[in-house]
Amino acid sequence: MLRQASHELTVATRGRGLYDFTREVEKWAVQNGFKEGLLTLHLQHTSASLLIQENADPDVRRDLESFFQRLVPDGDPLFSHTAEGDDDMPAHIRTALTAVNLNIPVRAGRLTLGTWQGIYLWEHRTHGHARRIALHFIGE
Amino acid sequence: MLRQASHELTVATRGRGLYDFTREVEKWAVQNGFKEGLLTLHLQHTSASLLIQENADPDVRRDLESFFQRLVPDGDPLFSHTAEGDDDMPAHIRTALTAVNLNIPVRAGRLTLGTWQGIYLWEHRTHGHARRIALHFIGE
Amino acid sequence: MLRQASHELTVATRGRGLYDFTREVEKWAVQNGFKEGLLTLHLQHTSASLLIQENADPDVRRDLESFFQRLVPDGDPLFSHTAEGDDDMPAHIRTALTAVNLNIPVRAGRLTLGTWQGIYLWEHRTHGHARRIALHFIGE
Repeated sequence: MLRQASHELTVATRGRGLYDFTREVEKWAVQNGFKEGLLTLHLQHTSASLLIQENADPDVRRDLESFFQRLVPDGDPLFSHTAEGDDDMPAHIRTALTAVNLNIPVRAGRLTLGTWQGIYLWEHRTHGHARRIALHFIGE
Repeated sequence: MLRQASHELTVATRGRGLYDFTREVEKWAVQNGFKEGLLTLHLQHTSASLLIQENADPDVRRDLESFFQRLVPDGDPLFSHTAEGDDDMPAHIRTALTAVNLNIPVRAGRLTLGTWQGIYLWEHRTHGHARRIALHFIGE
Repeated sequence: MLRQASHELTVATRGRGLYDFTREVEKWAVQNGFKEGLLTLHLQHTSASLLIQENADPDVRRDLESFFQRLVPDGDPLFSHTAEGDDDMPAHIRTALTAVNLNIPVRAGRLTLGTWQGIYLWEHRTHGHARRIALHFIGE
């Protein structure tokens, strides 16, 4: 019998970087007994992203961060939108280059993540924020 | 009682830039009385994107456009696919760097967009086009 | 009557580049008689992407590959995560810059892809891999 469920998660960040919240998502799926269906995450912000990435070597997250800092430099004179600081417009661009939505099919009671895939909140601002994520499930 | 609905929107662009069509999406959701569920948008083109971005300061959209023009230069000698003009291959690359799908959960009769989030069609070609978007809703 | 279905596809790659698997997805949709609904694809890897792109001129795929090789250079001294080779960290970054999820509404028994849209697996590693994709459909 098909059904749906909605939820909201908040991830508290301490500035730039990748925050793994795979367990919080899995916990919601297990508590509700989701067997098969589609799980969707939507981040309600424009200066942070949702990302599925490698969860083994922390160097991967560090290198991702270094690359994006070089690609979208803070304080670039190209930017007009600077009222909130040097990291504000780079945060919007980093969000545009990544994503704010994720979809993960659920099968046999488990998220179909690959062996090395974790679900991350990527904070693009230098200061910490409380980031809200809307979750939705439809299936059995 | 779960149900689904399909729709199509066309956004007419006047060349490069971000076009807010949040209201057209919300209008469809309200007219059909969607209460809770998942709303999906798919853009049927390969030289434009769908983007959720800041809807307050127009400088954000201008800076996004400036950054992408610098990152993916028109007429770059690297490109072989130039038959349709200097902006053709950059448009495909800008599309690859962003997205053509969006998912937004609906809850309590409203799209779960954040306070500052708007839904944009990002035209990457220098000339205007009529861009078609397939919409789908499943829920109650 | 709403229903759902799950499936898994494997795309065997022979190194870097874009692999069209639109037909495999369409075949699954046709075999199951999907009429209207939402089809979701999730790639279970962190060094390859799913991409909807132009399916006409092969130069588009070559130019996409050239651009990404220049944007994210193999063996960049910026990277610490190098144990698996010069192409390892660039593969993770290319994945972050693109996507591992796609959603395509189905309508009138057909995927709502645009005329020039194909579904691609983008292999970012220089060696070939077997890439697994979880598929989900919900609808009628």
